Amino acid sequence: MKKYSIKDIAELSGVSVATVSRVINDNGRFSEETRKRVLRVIEETGYKMNYSAKSLRMNKSFSIGILVPDISNYFFSDVVQKIEEILFDKGYSTIICNTARNQEKETAYLHMLEGKGVDGLIVISGAEAFEFDYSQIEKQIPYICIDREPKEKSRTIFISSNHYQGAFEATEQLIHSGCKQPIIAVHNRKSTSTKERLNGFKDALKKNNIAFNENSNLLNVDIRSSLFEADLISFLARNPAADGIFSLNDSIALEILLVLRKNIRSVPKYIKLIGFDDMPAGRYSSPTLSTVKQDTSKIALTAVESLLNLISFPSDTGKSIIIPVSLTLRESTQGN
Amino acid sequence: MKKYSIKDIAELSGVSVATVSRVINDNGRFSEETRKRVLRVIEETGYKMNYSAKSLRMNKSFSIGILVPDISNYFFSDVVQKIEEILFDKGYSTIICNTARNQEKETAYLHMLEGKGVDGLIVISGAEAFEFDYSQIEKQIPYICIDREPKEKSRTIFISSNHYQGAFEATEQLIHSGCKQPIIAVHNRKSTSTKERLNGFKDALKKNNIAFNENSNLLNVDIRSSLFEADLISFLARNPAADGIFSLNDSIALEILLVLRKNIRSVPKYIKLIGFDDMPAGRYSSPTLSTVKQDTSKIALTAVESLLNLISFPSDTGKSIIIPVSLTLRESTQGN
Repeated sequence: MKKYSIKDIAELSGVSVATVSRVINDNGRFSEETRKRVLRVIEETGYKMNYSAKSLRMNKSFSIGILVPDISNYFFSDVVQKIEEILFDKGYSTIICNTARNQEKETAYLHMLEGKGVDGLIVISGAEAFEFDYSQIEKQIPYICIDREPKEKSRTIFISSNHYQGAFEATEQLIHSGCKQPIIAVHNRKSTSTKERLNGFKDALKKNNIAFNENSNLLNVDIRSSLFEADLISFLARNPAADGIFSLNDSIALEILLVLRKNIRSVPKYIKLIGFDDMPAGRYSSPTLSTVKQDTSKIALTAVESLLNLISFPSDTGKSIIIPVSLTLRESTQGN
Repeated sequence: MKKYSIKDIAELSGVSVATVSRVINDNGRFSEETRKRVLRVIEETGYKMNYSAKSLRMNKSFSIGILVPDISNYFFSDVVQKIEEILFDKGYSTIICNTARNQEKETAYLHMLEGKGVDGLIVISGAEAFEFDYSQIEKQIPYICIDREPKEKSRTIFISSNHYQGAFEATEQLIHSGCKQPIIAVHNRKSTSTKERLNGFKDALKKNNIAFNENSNLLNVDIRSSLFEADLISFLARNPAADGIFSLNDSIALEILLVLRKNIRSVPKYIKLIGFDDMPAGRYSSPTLSTVKQDTSKIALTAVESLLNLISFPSDTGKSIIIPVSLTLRESTQGN
């Protein structure tokens, strides 16, 4: 069988290569008549241009959009990369959009993705509950949320690590290693996972008969602020009994570790420290960092399977899927 | 003035909301007549849907594609994020595609981006020289290359850090700190920047009258291999005089540091170590890691300016722009 090129198809259809490409990608202007003619030639010649012909037949673009707040964050980039890999194996392209936690940007990217005709959408994390503004679009794009509470749960599938469990176990690990006054270090971004981790911390205290006090158990930090170090030192001076820190993520934990190292509050001897995310950097630090590991492979696989199922069966929504986490224990929580 | 919604436009044009959206995004099927009618209504009402109306007028999609080999790599994600930020301020959406250093994937994403009608393309790094397969597409999309040698320099603009300078200065830093036998640690991926860094290393040796020998100055490592540690220890056993390592990047340097820490070849006392990229993890390690810092802000800004210029003036190609780097010195290269 002769192998036809896009140029052959153009010639046989009596149109330009650009028009064939537009018909194949279902993108741009051409008449219904042109479309039929080009498709007939494609069928007759058996021409295949990747999955574009399939795409046409099924009225799908075989592309999926991902909204992610910050691709330089280890957890996000790890999950996004794994999602992309699985989707590609299944014949889908992944369009990654970095929203930088900016509402205006998120809206713009949603419109862009809708305009580009994605078959589905994966929304990762974010401060506010997620919702589509359906007033602006007609076709409802199937979407799933990872680590981000959807506003209308009935319209989507929600996937999340068990942040509560992770925080609970991390805090109990501090207590079992001898900590009498554990602290939780948080940033001021309020996401779904932040709330869950705070709840897990509080419940672990309660279970172990330690009272939670906003002033002495909750440390608000901003690692990008020039006052980060001073704030931390001042908090520890006001709370000299603090002997364990559960940090909302490893980035914060590692910055805390740097300050403690300079200020002779030796970790783990005087203060024990545990983070969240299992960033590679936690293996290089001194002491090495204990942390909560999220199962990014499972999250990615569940996300892809859920979304593809939703594309085929749009009404199969309303589920929440919680993925277990596990502790990775290193030097920073060792008992004395 | 009344503020019109997309529904108003649809009603006034006598078509569906979906059709208006397709016309605005210049995506999908509609007749030339429909297009004119919708555009007339949009003009008469002064309707604005973000920059889509502008996009229509100028026959541009205001979206830019980025091909990046690995978004979990610190340097890549940092540059991509900065590019996205600058582009968004200029009214462009960024479509990020993760190619995982896979040729098949790269080709698929190129087709996808072409199908989605991006105005321009930024290609970051990669093993082979980059070239567009123009046999498959008609419209030439302007593109620029970062850290990736283009096959046809005359068609593009090439932007790169001064990898040669960085490697040269890093190696001289080792020598000035007392190293008599510096090693370069490389992985087996051959990219444009790898070659430049190797050249810089060799020339620094030559300038300081140290002979370069493949067996004793070049260490090939694969940090993902289970033999990484054994290979490194065996190399050092065969080359007991090795007293400095310039590592192709910080990821390799930090893994080397872990092995040396376990095997009592104390850094910087017996072996000095310097990396490339200035990853945050290098600040947390013990000892902290000296490194070569790439100016990612400058790279991102130059990339965006070059590409937008190319979109306006397609023939303004053939340039190479080299961005200086600088050393960040920490404990791992301290003299005795």
